[in-house]
Amino acid sequence: MNDEAVLLTLIDIFGKNAVLFDTESRNKYGIDYTQYYSPDPVAVVFPKNEEQLVSLVQLANKLSLKLVPSGGRTGYSGGAIAAFKEIVVSFEKMNKILSFCEEDRSVRCQPGLITKELQEFAKTKDLFYPVDFASSGSSQIGGNIATNAGGIKVIRYGLTRNWVTGLRVVTGNGEILELNNGLIKNATGYDFLNLFIGSEGTLGFITEATIKLIEEPLPQKVVLFSLNQKNHLLNILNKCRTLRYLSAFELFSDKALQIVLKEQSLTMPFSKSAPFYVLLEFDSTQENETLLFDVLESSLSSQSIGDVIISDSIEKANNLWKFRESISLSLRKYIPYKYDISVVPSRIIQFMSEVDGFLEKENQEIDVIWFGHVGDGNLHLNILKPKTMEKEKFFTYCDKISTSIYELVKKYSGSISAEHGIGLLKKPFLSYSKSDTEIAYMKLIKKLFDENNVMNPLKLV
Amino acid sequence: MNDEAVLLTLIDIFGKNAVLFDTESRNKYGIDYTQYYSPDPVAVVFPKNEEQLVSLVQLANKLSLKLVPSGGRTGYSGGAIAAFKEIVVSFEKMNKILSFCEEDRSVRCQPGLITKELQEFAKTKDLFYPVDFASSGSSQIGGNIATNAGGIKVIRYGLTRNWVTGLRVVTGNGEILELNNGLIKNATGYDFLNLFIGSEGTLGFITEATIKLIEEPLPQKVVLFSLNQKNHLLNILNKCRTLRYLSAFELFSDKALQIVLKEQSLTMPFSKSAPFYVLLEFDSTQENETLLFDVLESSLSSQSIGDVIISDSIEKANNLWKFRESISLSLRKYIPYKYDISVVPSRIIQFMSEVDGFLEKENQEIDVIWFGHVGDGNLHLNILKPKTMEKEKFFTYCDKISTSIYELVKKYSGSISAEHGIGLLKKPFLSYSKSDTEIAYMKLIKKLFDENNVMNPLKLV
Repeated sequence: MNDEAVLLTLIDIFGKNAVLFDTESRNKYGIDYTQYYSPDPVAVVFPKNEEQLVSLVQLANKLSLKLVPSGGRTGYSGGAIAAFKEIVVSFEKMNKILSFCEEDRSVRCQPGLITKELQEFAKTKDLFYPVDFASSGSSQIGGNIATNAGGIKVIRYGLTRNWVTGLRVVTGNGEILELNNGLIKNATGYDFLNLFIGSEGTLGFITEATIKLIEEPLPQKVVLFSLNQKNHLLNILNKCRTLRYLSAFELFSDKALQIVLKEQSLTMPFSKSAPFYVLLEFDSTQENETLLFDVLESSLSSQSIGDVIISDSIEKANNLWKFRESISLSLRKYIPYKYDISVVPSRIIQFMSEVDGFLEKENQEIDVIWFGHVGDGNLHLNILKPKTMEKEKFFTYCDKISTSIYELVKKYSGSISAEHGIGLLKKPFLSYSKSDTEIAYMKLIKKLFDENNVMNPLKLV
Repeated sequence: MNDEAVLLTLIDIFGKNAVLFDTESRNKYGIDYTQYYSPDPVAVVFPKNEEQLVSLVQLANKLSLKLVPSGGRTGYSGGAIAAFKEIVVSFEKMNKILSFCEEDRSVRCQPGLITKELQEFAKTKDLFYPVDFASSGSSQIGGNIATNAGGIKVIRYGLTRNWVTGLRVVTGNGEILELNNGLIKNATGYDFLNLFIGSEGTLGFITEATIKLIEEPLPQKVVLFSLNQKNHLLNILNKCRTLRYLSAFELFSDKALQIVLKEQSLTMPFSKSAPFYVLLEFDSTQENETLLFDVLESSLSSQSIGDVIISDSIEKANNLWKFRESISLSLRKYIPYKYDISVVPSRIIQFMSEVDGFLEKENQEIDVIWFGHVGDGNLHLNILKPKTMEKEKFFTYCDKISTSIYELVKKYSGSISAEHGIGLLKKPFLSYSKSDTEIAYMKLIKKLFDENNVMNPLKLV
């Protein structure tokens, strides 16, 4: 069947207004935050319900079409890229909250629901959805689930995985699975709920999710301090863990701060710069205040830390967060090559030193930006394109040095993708985090749920 | 190969002292808490390391042997039963803590480690392992992982799943998989860690686990009160959820209490009996005290609750827990048929009423005991053998009425096994909690990791 015939069949399924194939739409919906591939989908479709998705999957199996599930397209690994004549399946029109149960503290929603809308809905019920990150204003729940999104509060609340109690999915083979029914306890066989969470749209479409909410946390206190030597990080992290309860523990380098100050027109918050800064957030209680002052006092007297800023209002807390949360956005125009690495927290310092050593030897003109959720061992290493280097050449160069960086990740038994997924970008490097045996099993699992490889092909495995 | 030749080969692998085949050992290691099957294993082996397990799995594949992984054998679904000439693989000798990392708050251990030993080890490090249940003194970490054990604090801390950050396994095909390396964040493909958790030993042997610990909770307060009408339960649960933080919310019926009083020689704690009792546990703070008194006051004035007992010491708290935690043990001599059901909490009352209605109509001589972790929607329904009925006849009768009870579970989109697993006992009823499509996928997954069905065959799928 030629492209035109396919389009007509898609219009049959979705209706005329829910199939777009103009260049602008194809370009818009064919990419995500990964600045690396050129979009080239055949069309973009906007399903309204599960039946349409079943029909689409059946059609794809019959005609060997390739389907790319598409959420807020805020990913950094090219999981939502459609560069090879795929059909993009946008969930923009399946974006509703379907029901809420106060007694179960649960929300049933469609996959296109924006993260921030769920957070705000929870607030109207005096409840809280704790998964949060810089892109919460445009990322969608379905995409969060597909990548098991993490973000800034994992140290306290865990990943997206922890908050999903039920999923409805259409597998790549076209069957509907109702997984876990929103139950908290259910020991009735293999955990397909968690198998679909984090599978990056390669096993099927999510058509509905049940999400657990919790009580709102106490008012939060935010503290930002400068760290004179990264060697002191773990000691301070350990002490801060006695706070009840630590919600975030973030690190960023002076280079990251300087770019944020410039791009966001913010004023330097410290009297002098330091190699690193740490932001922490925790429940604002009397006991924590006492504990915090103990930590700060001993760290100040040992000169581990320099300046300290403590929030005394929500506004000030938000302002402190800006220094950390604007990093990704501020870096965009510098054309960063992004690594999203994790190691166990105890090995972070040693790992960073080895990577720094390697990069220094490799190319002294390249700006290296460190930031991340170090409380969870998650480092966002960004390497910036030198002004004098062509974009293409830069990416080719990065692909080359990636091999060495991922060798180090492997040496430290770390992850080459802590929370961004594998997608297209990291697929060539999967073997640095998974054994051949495990990858072989991943391929078999993919084949099981999506025999004809119609779901997000070329991604992940 | 005949049994004798198999025994000689087993002795080759494990050594003479680590292979038992006397009747006493076979009887002891061939059963779990499920009072339902007669043990009949060929032998019991006691591996000391992973290599021996690989050799055993290879042998099993070659000779079509059936292997039953065996932990503390405290299960209630027959997951560790060896009644069909299997080889029991006991982890009693692989019971060590291998390492501890303060900075990562993590413990690497062997699967035979006793739950209580892990809890106590954590305490020596001023940390806490929060998965807890009545059988923690004999259950093993490997068994907990294999069944994704829950217990009494799930409402606050989640299931075993939440605390496992890494596993080493030997699959039924004989390969070693190292899953997740103890990382907190790792978005590199399908979640095999969670696939093995809760798989009841049907996919492979766990040879090592990495467990996350957390800070010790504040001192806990325990409250026990009598509930005049179960209809008021959800309202009270909702109010109690505002306590920061509720660690347990347990229900038990008067019949359960009366048996505990008799079997444990305890004194009735209340001035008069009520249909149900609720035990809750939470952080002992000033704020919670105030909140609690508000809840109690409104519930007392509406006569939802009767007597209230509040712990004022650890000893008193432990004594209050005895009324709840001794139920299972106290019931044992009454030959109970155990259901381990969950529904979403909002539907608990309606569900209980329907089951009560059915059982009353069915047989008025049968004692029905309700208890469970109702904060998570988990109900342990126990039906006691009438004195006049033969054991065999009773179980046959229960199998018959189970169909009707599980029909109700299905009607409420519940789980036929909240935390006990499927094992042998519930395998015939799996379709009440899983669709045919999902069961078909479960069989394919089993086949993938254990092609020749050597791992715990006849269980689960």
